[in-house]
Order: sequence, then C-alpha cells, then structure tokens
Amino acid sequence: MDTQPAVAYADDLVVGHRYQLDSYTLDEAELVEFARQWDPQGFHIDAAVADAGAYGGLIASGIHTIAIYQRLSVTGVFDHWSVIAGRTLNDVRFLRPVRPGDTLTGTVLIDAIEFDDRGRALVTTSAEIVNQDGSAVLTLVVDAYVRARPAAAGS
Amino acid sequence: MDTQPAVAYADDLVVGHRYQLDSYTLDEAELVEFARQWDPQGFHIDAAVADAGAYGGLIASGIHTIAIYQRLSVTGVFDHWSVIAGRTLNDVRFLRPVRPGDTLTGTVLIDAIEFDDRGRALVTTSAEIVNQDGSAVLTLVVDAYVRARPAAAGS
Repeated sequence: MDTQPAVAYADDLVVGHRYQLDSYTLDEAELVEFARQWDPQGFHIDAAVADAGAYGGLIASGIHTIAIYQRLSVTGVFDHWSVIAGRTLNDVRFLRPVRPGDTLTGTVLIDAIEFDDRGRALVTTSAEIVNQDGSAVLTLVVDAYVRARPAAAGS
Repeated sequence: MDTQPAVAYADDLVVGHRYQLDSYTLDEAELVEFARQWDPQGFHIDAAVADAGAYGGLIASGIHTIAIYQRLSVTGVFDHWSVIAGRTLNDVRFLRPVRPGDTLTGTVLIDAIEFDDRGRALVTTSAEIVNQDGSAVLTLVVDAYVRARPAAAGS
C-alpha cells in the first residue's frame, strides 16, 4: 500500500537544518519563451541584442531564475510542510547571469521559526541557487507561514 | 514614418517620478498552469484543496504575481530605459491573495539614482500592484543597473 509521507508542522522543523535541492536544466527555447511572456527585454529574448550587450549572449530573466528556485524548493522542501502561504521575500540577489544550458541546484536553510498566537509560525529560510560550476547565481530569504501542530483532542 | 522613442539613460530619470502601469487579468486556467510548472502547492493547483484551505479557493502563486509585475513594469517602464540588468529585489510583500479573474495594475516610483564610476547608475524603484478593488496585493523594491549617457565624442 502507498502511504503518504507525514506533512511537517512548524513544530517538526529545526533551525539550522539545510535541505539539498534537486537540479533543473534550462535550454534556450524555454529561456526565451519565459522571457517573451513575462520579461520581454532585448537581452532576454533577442540573441542579436544579447550578443552585443553586457553579457555577450542571452541571459535568463531573474524572474525565471526565481521560478526555478520556487519549483525546486516546493518539490524538495515546502510541499512536505503544512504551508499556509508565503509572506515576504528579501535580499533577492541576482549574482551571476544564468545562460541557456545551465543546470541549477542549491540548498534551503532554516534560519528561524517564530510561533504566534494564531496556530502558526513564521518560518524564515535562506536559499542559495548555484550553477553547474558551483557558483551562486541567486540567493534569497523567504518568510512563510506554516501551521503549528493542532492540539490533540481533549488536551 | 515610425520613429522609435529615445531610450532613457540614467541621466534622464527623475527621482520621485511615478509611472502608471497597464493592467493584466489572469484567469483560472493560467493561474493553475503557471503554478503546475513553477509552484505546485495544493492551494495553487487543486481547487478541492484550495476550497478547504486558508483562503477558501485557488490563489495565484506569489511568483506568478511577481511575473505579472515584471511584465507590466518592463512594457511600461524598463523597456524604455537603457537597462543593463536587475541586481536585487527587497521587501517583496504578498499582501493579499490574487484570485482567478483578478485584474492587476499599479505604479512604479523612482526612489533613488546612484551613479558609479563604471558608466552606470543603480536605480532604485518601488512598485505597488493593486487589484480591481484598489487593494494592494504586492509591493516590492527593485535595484537595477541603468547605463549613464555616453560622453559625446571629443568631449
């Protein structure tokens, strides 16, 4: 029989725990398609403009890089927690260009867990996304609300 | 004859200037499709889970809301500037749920322009994205590098 893994409440999380993320490779077609829809600046969508630009070739939209971070962190971390919703992102730093063919991976670290009186905790995580050379391309800090473990019946 | 509008250099920008953005309506199919690809949490992709959840229905991924901000700000503001690249996002706040059928618009305000000695300026903007009721759903602060006007030949 299949059994669903237990979903973690904020009480189950540990400050200082670091999660290793899966990896994601983006190709030029995906890079350009994402940018045409969401970030149609020349250096993201037009190879001629990009070749003449500051980076000598197409670079991914920073929003695309954030989306890849989100996919990796949801499937690797947040989908196993009882998340209510994200609240804030801070210090979102685009450290190096992401180019067609790059393979991204990274880590998510639990920085802090602050319970409130509404049956939840604000959980602060910091993430680092690196490319195939191990060089950081994106770092960010995320605050999200996670449910506290419900009180047992009768307690 | 068509003439391309002149692209603004950092020298042409004015601290305190506020730009009104165009609007964007997202429907449920787009909301779910974006989240399936980039943020596959139940409250973004599964109506039954979402109906039972904290928000009483599907809500858009915060990354989707950021992508809509980026599309509106690129077409309305940044594509008219000589942008090199974004550097950081700060204080990205998800203030209210974004739901299927919502129409988003907003403003971008120039907060600061700091020239460096590399022919460019770091331009800080703050954006507010509101829904059709005028309620803020997202605010954020963006730092991006914009080219300074090249020195005239012989000067």
